[in-house]
Amino acid sequence: QSQHFGCLLDSGVSNQSIPVVLPVSTEDKELLDGCSAFTLRYDGQPVAILRKPEFYEHRKEERCARQWGTTCEDHPYIKMVNESGDWLCGGDIEALERIRWNDGLDEYRLTPMELRAKFRQMGSDAVFAFQLRNPIHNGHALLMQDTRQQLLERGYHNPVLLLHPLGGWTKDDDVPLKIRMEQHHAVLKEGVLDPSSTVLAIFPSPMMYAGPTEVQWHAKARMATGANFYIVGRDPAGMPHPRAQKDLYHAQHGRKVLTMAPGLTQLEIIPFRVAAYDKAAGKMAFYDPARKSDFEFISGTKMRTLARNGDNPPDGFMAPSAWKVLSSYYQSLSKE
Amino acid sequence: QSQHFGCLLDSGVSNQSIPVVLPVSTEDKELLDGCSAFTLRYDGQPVAILRKPEFYEHRKEERCARQWGTTCEDHPYIKMVNESGDWLCGGDIEALERIRWNDGLDEYRLTPMELRAKFRQMGSDAVFAFQLRNPIHNGHALLMQDTRQQLLERGYHNPVLLLHPLGGWTKDDDVPLKIRMEQHHAVLKEGVLDPSSTVLAIFPSPMMYAGPTEVQWHAKARMATGANFYIVGRDPAGMPHPRAQKDLYHAQHGRKVLTMAPGLTQLEIIPFRVAAYDKAAGKMAFYDPARKSDFEFISGTKMRTLARNGDNPPDGFMAPSAWKVLSSYYQSLSKE
Repeated sequence: QSQHFGCLLDSGVSNQSIPVVLPVSTEDKELLDGCSAFTLRYDGQPVAILRKPEFYEHRKEERCARQWGTTCEDHPYIKMVNESGDWLCGGDIEALERIRWNDGLDEYRLTPMELRAKFRQMGSDAVFAFQLRNPIHNGHALLMQDTRQQLLERGYHNPVLLLHPLGGWTKDDDVPLKIRMEQHHAVLKEGVLDPSSTVLAIFPSPMMYAGPTEVQWHAKARMATGANFYIVGRDPAGMPHPRAQKDLYHAQHGRKVLTMAPGLTQLEIIPFRVAAYDKAAGKMAFYDPARKSDFEFISGTKMRTLARNGDNPPDGFMAPSAWKVLSSYYQSLSKE
Repeated sequence: QSQHFGCLLDSGVSNQSIPVVLPVSTEDKELLDGCSAFTLRYDGQPVAILRKPEFYEHRKEERCARQWGTTCEDHPYIKMVNESGDWLCGGDIEALERIRWNDGLDEYRLTPMELRAKFRQMGSDAVFAFQLRNPIHNGHALLMQDTRQQLLERGYHNPVLLLHPLGGWTKDDDVPLKIRMEQHHAVLKEGVLDPSSTVLAIFPSPMMYAGPTEVQWHAKARMATGANFYIVGRDPAGMPHPRAQKDLYHAQHGRKVLTMAPGLTQLEIIPFRVAAYDKAAGKMAFYDPARKSDFEFISGTKMRTLARNGDNPPDGFMAPSAWKVLSSYYQSLSKE
């Protein structure tokens, strides 16, 4: 259902574009076949019991093709799928206790119920969510500030931002969660984002770089926290094609697919124009093609080079203390 | 919508698992860009007018991955996609007149409306459709006879079979339409299928070998003719994987996907067990694993070898006059 229709259809329609699966090796399958239940462990610690296990062939090529729209073996998540077990296991799962990562960030790993409670407690009448896996520059901040403004203009009194960085696996050249969290704190501390109307929490999903298919999962998970609005920028969950010289996904497809996806009707999608550095104004602004030459696109590569060399980006690109966090991280990398 | 959800979602849900597209070369696109309308020709003859044309990038890798669950370049239809134009054109289409193939078989190319009229005229109270791209052996006939029997037992008085062979492009080693039609006529003439409760018509779609994705299109197109029941055997629209030593699709996935597909709710899916040659009974019968050794699976390869050598298959495998049609065809091939 998930692979063919992006939905679970058993009782009504609920969006589920990404199948959540447990790959198992042939040895483990042979060991476990016929068991009525077994324990799932992580680092030796029992974390859950899986009852009435069923095993299915892990049809990796078909799974990747339908989920990613490519089977390119150099795609970092497809690589992991190909290296995983040849069987998938399903069943009734019972978590033994709350999952803790013990990395000092567990206080930010709030469940959807806890987030809902928090929003209620803050007296919010609208929640808008922003998904990110990168450091926040002032272009991102602009999207969030502008969304809040739009919601206030529409008559909401207390719109709350769910700033919800992705906390699971990301590819090697992405900035690690710990650094990103520090960077986000700095942005809040400098007041680029308003701390009193923002909830910072971690979304513990891995990053799959599956573009328009994955963005539905991102939106659906935020809908579960009670968010009513979801900000979508250019090319969500995208990356460059591992072999061809272009983006893996069409930059507008994520937004398009999201606005038509079944089962996401409670969520209003807020699409955004591209933000870039406006040299005339000395700040990040929505790109205006009429003043083309005034704008500079600061790519990830350029940002990394500046950070690594200890150079500063143009004023107004990022909160200075947040830039410092990032710049220290990249310089520590260079030293290794 | 079609690629991500297998459906058109604009007004309600209608199943559309296969995008129907018009690939255009870059030269043609440049020539046509800005036109308000142009004529589509086939073999020099105008067949339709396309108004308000829009052009989209033909994202071949993503299209193939999502439609076929593979991007293998040796897949015969994917090969054609890769060789087609780099753009897709959409717009409002107006057919100038009825499409005729002028191959002597046009009388069998009935529109959905014509088929509905025919069923009404025959006084049918149930229509069951059978999709095929191969010659009919007695195993197929058994599925159809048994379906009719089941429907009579359920209280229908006049169930009519829509025998609807696929008439568009098929891969080179499939039997050509003309020969298949002759073979089908022979099967009807011998009374293996009852001519008075059967409508033989051509389904003019190409064969895409896209398994569970394509079978929805096959079912949906038959729903449009007024069919209420759709017979599904093993591995519909499947083929061997062009590289790996296995079937491209899981043999049961087509049936499973069909029973849960959105927008196909007016159609009841009749799944079937495998039929094989029962040596004890001297006829095609539903395979009974308890009498495993009594059954012989006559593969396409074996059938072709017998036909090519002028040998006969076991009695009861196929109507003899229908076998003769097939055998002459394969012998004419060998002579070439």
